[in-house]
Amino acid sequence: MQQGHQTWVFNNKPVIASTAAVVGPFEGRGPLANDFDLIHGDSLLNQESWEKAEKVLFEDAARLAIEQAGLLKEQIDFFIGGDLMNQIISTSYAARTLSIPYLGVFGACSTSMESLALAAYLVNTRGGKHVLAGTCSHNSTAEKQFRYPTEYGSQKPPYAQYTVTGAGAAVVASKGKGPVITSATMGRVIDMGIKDPFNMGAAMAPAAVDTITAHFRDLRIGPEEYDMIVTGDLAQVGHGLANDLFEKHGIPIHKTDFQDCGMMIYDYNTQMVQAGGSGCACSAVVTYGHLMKRMNRGEIRKLLVVATGALMSPLAMQQGESIPAIAHAVSIHYDGEAMQGG
Amino acid sequence: MQQGHQTWVFNNKPVIASTAAVVGPFEGRGPLANDFDLIHGDSLLNQESWEKAEKVLFEDAARLAIEQAGLLKEQIDFFIGGDLMNQIISTSYAARTLSIPYLGVFGACSTSMESLALAAYLVNTRGGKHVLAGTCSHNSTAEKQFRYPTEYGSQKPPYAQYTVTGAGAAVVASKGKGPVITSATMGRVIDMGIKDPFNMGAAMAPAAVDTITAHFRDLRIGPEEYDMIVTGDLAQVGHGLANDLFEKHGIPIHKTDFQDCGMMIYDYNTQMVQAGGSGCACSAVVTYGHLMKRMNRGEIRKLLVVATGALMSPLAMQQGESIPAIAHAVSIHYDGEAMQGG
Repeated sequence: MQQGHQTWVFNNKPVIASTAAVVGPFEGRGPLANDFDLIHGDSLLNQESWEKAEKVLFEDAARLAIEQAGLLKEQIDFFIGGDLMNQIISTSYAARTLSIPYLGVFGACSTSMESLALAAYLVNTRGGKHVLAGTCSHNSTAEKQFRYPTEYGSQKPPYAQYTVTGAGAAVVASKGKGPVITSATMGRVIDMGIKDPFNMGAAMAPAAVDTITAHFRDLRIGPEEYDMIVTGDLAQVGHGLANDLFEKHGIPIHKTDFQDCGMMIYDYNTQMVQAGGSGCACSAVVTYGHLMKRMNRGEIRKLLVVATGALMSPLAMQQGESIPAIAHAVSIHYDGEAMQGG
Repeated sequence: MQQGHQTWVFNNKPVIASTAAVVGPFEGRGPLANDFDLIHGDSLLNQESWEKAEKVLFEDAARLAIEQAGLLKEQIDFFIGGDLMNQIISTSYAARTLSIPYLGVFGACSTSMESLALAAYLVNTRGGKHVLAGTCSHNSTAEKQFRYPTEYGSQKPPYAQYTVTGAGAAVVASKGKGPVITSATMGRVIDMGIKDPFNMGAAMAPAAVDTITAHFRDLRIGPEEYDMIVTGDLAQVGHGLANDLFEKHGIPIHKTDFQDCGMMIYDYNTQMVQAGGSGCACSAVVTYGHLMKRMNRGEIRKLLVVATGALMSPLAMQQGESIPAIAHAVSIHYDGEAMQGG
C-alpha cells in the first residue's frame, strides 16, 4: 500500500467484478433507463412504508450484484454500506438479511465512494477476497426526514435537488477481469457557511474541489489523466460553482470531461427536478449502472468518481449550524477486456 | 494481511500510541473517575445545546489523544469516527474542526471498536502512519433522540440502561511502544426479535456471543487466550444472557475474566443507572481510560474488547421492526514496556 497524504494507491488491482443499479419509476423515465438492472414500477415496492421500500431497493441491488459476480452471499467476506436514513437503517436492516460481516459507514451522499474505497482497500490488502459495497436512497424517505411531509406540497427553490430513489452495489474482488480500482482519495470536511438546507450543491462544491485537488496533488497528475471526472450530486448550481472554483485555483478542469451524476440521471426538459438529482443513490446508480456500462463498451478508460456528501442534520440546522460537506474520490481504470459477470 | 473468515490479523504491530477519555460529571462520580483524562463539571460544557456539548466532548478527547501522542493534528493521516446522533453530527462537526481526512462510520455503540479496528487495519497495511479513532455519546442527546424528553421524567424499567456522557479517542501509530492491536473480528447483524427499545442488553447479547465465537473460530483459540474479555454495554441483563448463551454453546467463557464496560463505569449502590451504562462512549471511555491504564500497569496483558451496538431506530420501531444488533471485537496485547505518550 502506497500512501501520499490522503490518497491510497492500490497496486494489487482490486477489480469491480460486478455492479447492480436498481431504481424507482421516476428514474426509469430518465435518460439512463436502459443502463439500470431493475426499474421498479411502484416506488413503494409493495411495502408498508417508504423506509421498508428503500431497504428492499438495496436488498435487490445487493442480490443482483452478488449473482452477477457469479457468487453466493456466503462467499462475500464483508459488506460495507450506509445510507441517508437515521441510524442507516436501510443498509443495516439489509445487512441483517444478508448476514455478511458488516461495516456501517456514513458520509451522506459520499457514502457510495466511501464504501467502494474501503472495499477496494480491503481487497487490495488481502483483507477480503470479495467485498460488497453499496448504498441507497429514496425520494420519499429523504423528503420526510430532511425536509417537509410531501403532503404539504411545499414549493422548492430552483436550486433545490431531487433525491434519487434507487440503490447501487458493487462486488470488489481480488481476481478476475473488469474495471480496476487504482486509487482513492478520502476527503476532509469542508464548510463554507451555507445554511440553506435546499442549497446542497453550493455546500458540497468546495468539498468536491478540495478532494479532486488533493487527488491531483497526491498523485502528481492533472485533469488530463482522466477521460471523465464525475461528481456525485452537485447538480447545476454546485457544478457551476465547482467549475468556478477550479478556474480560480488555476486547475484546468476543462482538460477532462467534467460531469455530475446529478445532472445526468434526469431529463431537465420533462422531469421537474429543480437543479438535478441528489441522494446516496445518485452517484451509486449512475456509476454502477451507466458509467460501468460505458467503461465496458470502451467509451471511458479512466474515470474518477467523486461522490459528494452534505452532512446535513435537521437538528443541527435548527441550532443554527451550517452544512458541512465531504467528498470521496475513487479512480477506476479499464483496459477494455471483457468484464466478467454483470 | 492474513484473513480468516471475518477476522483480520495484524502482523505489523499497529500500536495504540495514546488514548484519551473525557466524561461528564455523573461518570466522574463513578468508580473509574481516576482513570479519565478530563471530567467536565457541567454536562452542558457551557454550550447552547446538548448536541453541541457532545461535539465538544469529542473535540476534547481528540485533542488530548493527539497531544498525548506527541503529535500535531496535521500529522494525523485519517480520522475514523462516528456516534449515536442522526447523521453522526458529533463526529462530523468535530471532523470539520480537526480538518483531517475523515471516514464516518456507524455501528451504534459498536462504533468504538469499528473505528479502532479500521484504524489498526489502515496502519497495519501502511495506509496511514497515524490514524485517529474515536466516538462519543451524551446522556441527554440520546434520551432526546431515542426515548422521551427528559422533562417528562418518565419511569424506566429495571433492564433499561443509562447512556454514558463522554468521548474516547485513540491514536493508532505504525511505530512506537505501547499496546499492540493484534487482530479484529467484524461482526454480522444479529436480530433475535427484541422489540422493546429499553431492552438493549438482550438485543445485543447474541451479537456479542456471535462475534466472540467467530473470533475464537477464526483464530483457533479459546477464552483462556485472554486475561480479560470485555463487552461494550450489555449491562446486567445482557451480560447474564451472554453468559447463558456461552454455556449453551459449550464455550468455557469462565476461563477468562469476562466483564462488561456498562457494568464497570457506574456504582450500582449510589448511581441510579438501572441495568448499567450504555452508549458509544461507554466502551470507549472504559477502554481508553480505565483498561489502557490497567494494561500500562501490567495488570492486563491480553485484552479483547467487544463493542456491542443496538442498531435501534425510533422510526423502525414505530414501524414494528425489532432491534438488529452487531458487535465488533478488537484484540489488544501489551508486553509491559513503557507506553509512550499518554
